[in-house]
Amino acid sequence: MQIYKAPIDDMRFILEAFGYDELVGSLPDYEAFDLETVTAILKESGKFCTNEMLPLNRKGDQEGLTYDPETSSVTLPEGFKALYAKFVESGFAGIAHPEEFGGGGGPATLALMLSEMATATNKSFSMCPGLTHGLVEALLHFGTDQQKKDYLPKLVSGEWSGTMCLTEPQCGTDLGLVSTKAIPEGDHYKLTGTKIWITFGEHDLTENIVHLVLARLPDAPPGIKGISTFLVPKFTLDGRRNPVFCTGLEHKMGIHASPTCVINLEDAEGYLVGQPHKGMRAMFVMMNAARISVGLEGVALGEIAYQTALAFAKDRRQSRSLDRAKQDKDAAADNILVHPDVRRMLLNVKSTTEGMRGLAYWVGMHMDISQHHPDEATRQKSDDFVALLTPIVKSFCTERGFANVSEAMQVTGGAGYTTDWSIEQYMRDARIAMIYEGTNHIQALDLVGRKLPQANGRLIKGFVDEIKRFIGEHKEDESLAEFLGPLKDASKTLGEVTMQLAMKGMQDPEEAAAVASNYLNLFGLTALAYIWAHQVAACIGKEGRFYRSKIKTARYFYNMILPESAGLVAIISKGKDHMMAFEVDEL
Amino acid sequence: MQIYKAPIDDMRFILEAFGYDELVGSLPDYEAFDLETVTAILKESGKFCTNEMLPLNRKGDQEGLTYDPETSSVTLPEGFKALYAKFVESGFAGIAHPEEFGGGGGPATLALMLSEMATATNKSFSMCPGLTHGLVEALLHFGTDQQKKDYLPKLVSGEWSGTMCLTEPQCGTDLGLVSTKAIPEGDHYKLTGTKIWITFGEHDLTENIVHLVLARLPDAPPGIKGISTFLVPKFTLDGRRNPVFCTGLEHKMGIHASPTCVINLEDAEGYLVGQPHKGMRAMFVMMNAARISVGLEGVALGEIAYQTALAFAKDRRQSRSLDRAKQDKDAAADNILVHPDVRRMLLNVKSTTEGMRGLAYWVGMHMDISQHHPDEATRQKSDDFVALLTPIVKSFCTERGFANVSEAMQVTGGAGYTTDWSIEQYMRDARIAMIYEGTNHIQALDLVGRKLPQANGRLIKGFVDEIKRFIGEHKEDESLAEFLGPLKDASKTLGEVTMQLAMKGMQDPEEAAAVASNYLNLFGLTALAYIWAHQVAACIGKEGRFYRSKIKTARYFYNMILPESAGLVAIISKGKDHMMAFEVDEL
Repeated sequence: MQIYKAPIDDMRFILEAFGYDELVGSLPDYEAFDLETVTAILKESGKFCTNEMLPLNRKGDQEGLTYDPETSSVTLPEGFKALYAKFVESGFAGIAHPEEFGGGGGPATLALMLSEMATATNKSFSMCPGLTHGLVEALLHFGTDQQKKDYLPKLVSGEWSGTMCLTEPQCGTDLGLVSTKAIPEGDHYKLTGTKIWITFGEHDLTENIVHLVLARLPDAPPGIKGISTFLVPKFTLDGRRNPVFCTGLEHKMGIHASPTCVINLEDAEGYLVGQPHKGMRAMFVMMNAARISVGLEGVALGEIAYQTALAFAKDRRQSRSLDRAKQDKDAAADNILVHPDVRRMLLNVKSTTEGMRGLAYWVGMHMDISQHHPDEATRQKSDDFVALLTPIVKSFCTERGFANVSEAMQVTGGAGYTTDWSIEQYMRDARIAMIYEGTNHIQALDLVGRKLPQANGRLIKGFVDEIKRFIGEHKEDESLAEFLGPLKDASKTLGEVTMQLAMKGMQDPEEAAAVASNYLNLFGLTALAYIWAHQVAACIGKEGRFYRSKIKTARYFYNMILPESAGLVAIISKGKDHMMAFEVDEL
Repeated sequence: MQIYKAPIDDMRFILEAFGYDELVGSLPDYEAFDLETVTAILKESGKFCTNEMLPLNRKGDQEGLTYDPETSSVTLPEGFKALYAKFVESGFAGIAHPEEFGGGGGPATLALMLSEMATATNKSFSMCPGLTHGLVEALLHFGTDQQKKDYLPKLVSGEWSGTMCLTEPQCGTDLGLVSTKAIPEGDHYKLTGTKIWITFGEHDLTENIVHLVLARLPDAPPGIKGISTFLVPKFTLDGRRNPVFCTGLEHKMGIHASPTCVINLEDAEGYLVGQPHKGMRAMFVMMNAARISVGLEGVALGEIAYQTALAFAKDRRQSRSLDRAKQDKDAAADNILVHPDVRRMLLNVKSTTEGMRGLAYWVGMHMDISQHHPDEATRQKSDDFVALLTPIVKSFCTERGFANVSEAMQVTGGAGYTTDWSIEQYMRDARIAMIYEGTNHIQALDLVGRKLPQANGRLIKGFVDEIKRFIGEHKEDESLAEFLGPLKDASKTLGEVTMQLAMKGMQDPEEAAAVASNYLNLFGLTALAYIWAHQVAACIGKEGRFYRSKIKTARYFYNMILPESAGLVAIISKGKDHMMAFEVDEL
């Protein structure tokens, strides 16, 4: 059973709630993308995802990939190649890339929304354009004019795909240990080394694959400051096969139709992107764009798992309501939606999924503003929001998203544990998002170690001020009162915990690192409270099922999820002592 | 990579900490099973699990099962049949069954410890003797003398296996909907119906399979009070093939080597067990024994995942310690155990796994006391502990165990997401334990709806009194002070929340049902605090690495896990309103 209704109504509501047309749709670069246009594109893409991508999702999981060591080639499951051709034809691939290179010129927010639907309906497939998108961003920022001219048109259209070659056997999180070598030769470089975990490093969907590779020049200083970035195409522009080969595939818990390759570079021809030794810059451009998409994987898979569990629950009868008035005398048992715990599980998923969706697109809109607003101060403010909240979107949404898929499975009982309902695939596919694009703890260190201290705390102060501004703006509104009090408290608590953390962390960085993951989750809950209050404010004066549900779901979040903060605050206050007390042989 | 060191030291420590030799080893029935003897058996069984069962675990997952519709036969992965023969030969199968029928006559606690190690090393395989064990229990309680004589010897030895046939397509949780029919015919019955989710319902490990089947007699009243229990062997005692056929296998997320069968009874010959219409009694005997084992699945898989992640972490170097003094100047990066967050994840797993292990075996010891102590009041008191805590062991340990396997995966990063390290299999295998043997919410309803009100609250009062007694006994001991204060607070909070729940639930059962799952988790945390304090008390005056680690781990639990209670208390106080507020079309 593969069930999905594209959540266009919720996406449109979120855009409206955050004032999309005033803030993004009115930017000079995006005049052609007002809410109506965006909604129309979402609908069209939603249809494509539901009708074309979803039917191949379970098939892809079950059939998996074929690797031929003779030819170093990887074949995707049957139907994926034809699907990819349709995807390229649809024009969705380059929707947010510059028109100059054949893209649609649309806002990043729109591209993120398309990525949510693609992930929900076929996560493995969606990773191919996902990686390409990152490469396009890196080239736009750091490529030479010639490189842009040579590579971007086919990457933007999706005719070629891109990869990101960072990890090596001895280095994942710690990229300072990269040892792949790049030796200058004329106007190019010869690269030698082994890269692992390369998503779509080899496949049969496109005629060419362009790798972005981290490597060291001969005169590179050690560590992270000696890394450069190179373009290494599978086929050079003049048609030669470059010696960059897939030597094996990983066997994974999920994303079975997404090839995770070992890639050997054997004197492969590469071209420097950006400055020598400054390669991490380009990587961060790729990664920051990717991190919001990865966060959305938790939203996407939580959403489809929710829809599946709800469909199951609406059909299933089991036991009697504890409230006699709700018992269906004409049947031998009542529908399971009469049971409070079934609702509790469903609402845990719904209230966090819709909150996280709101957060991700709020950040998405600020990405657009930060890059396209004419006013510098406005750009800076938006950029601060994006920088601060990117690690939270990536980590909080993937952790909660995975838990949400598991919660949805619990609603369906044994049925959900079988392949029949596909939830088990969503769970396997969702788990990796907590690991890749920087593990969730790396996000927490980014938040605590880089984003909080940045510009003397301007980023966090800006976010707390924004919550205050929102509360002030709505303080006369009685129908918001039940939310604004707890929001104020949550924001105050976050401020206090941040201050304690800063004080402790200044004296001893281990103190900050020890609490970073729990702090990030506390921040995530607070950010969701802000987002939910915003959504409630947008419901006022409106009638109908959708808005009633929104307000009830917000209440559920405030009463049944936000109080988790109390436990986190208590645990954060304990600092590092109880972790660091152990000798290694006592673990 | 399949890594496992049987946790014999911890098991033995737990038995000592709870006074095994005084409480169980000295019971007249168990004089032959003192701590030394039990330890020797644990060691022998641990060797069998590690050397014989573990090597086939991943192979079983990858190879899976073969079903032949022509012959309705199921073939297990290569090597499983030979392994099973060795298992029967070892004598572990019947270790806790009566000597009268060829068993070892040992305590249930010992059998539980063996089941933990078997689950850790090969969960699929372990389910076959696990189900047989339940059938033996049911026959011992409700079988006629002739039935016992005919069936028990070969079930106890493991030459035959048992199943539990409850679920039908229209009924899982709600067994009142069972529709399988049993028509009397001479001295037996003819059964017709379809059963699903039948674990080891068909396989090639044993020469016979004995099903315990829930069905209705022609004159049965509707609902749960019209269910009777029947023995339905695959081969009758005179060697005829009974028409009870496997018509298909489920395709599952995990436990790939454990056949989950659809079983068709087509006028199959069956024999009544126990009284007509009183079949649920026998089922509850089977299930209650099984629920502690299922709880231990979370301990078992959390343990092996922990050991695997720790082995990975000890080997892996990545990034630098934030504490310069800990940096290894001779290497390019430090071992990841210098990072507080890696320790946090490992200790989340270790502190809960060891706590849950203690809880399960404390309950196990009270199972033995409740059945074998000469004094009735002592038996009753122990029986109260078992009844109260069984749903907590089943639900809390499986939920936390699943989360623990996921946490262990996070320590290993991408490596853990591949099949190479096997953690991904442990996660897939662990997930079902939250669903079967009564879903975790059914456990919570059992706790709140049956166990709390039972005998006017005697069970919960007895447990709270036991905590008070423990605190009183140790109140002069300064080295326990840091634990006794928080334990007292936790116990007081549990008492208060229980009282609120009872008051609300009396007026409106939906209020109790709505908070039951969170209440069970609060209870679980409090129970673990009690167990950890007990473990600390057993360390006093002892020296060495093991005891130092225990005390530090207890501190970790009290400071970094127990405070989660704060969030649960806040959420429980909100009751049912925010779940029940939704119309179905608003979900």
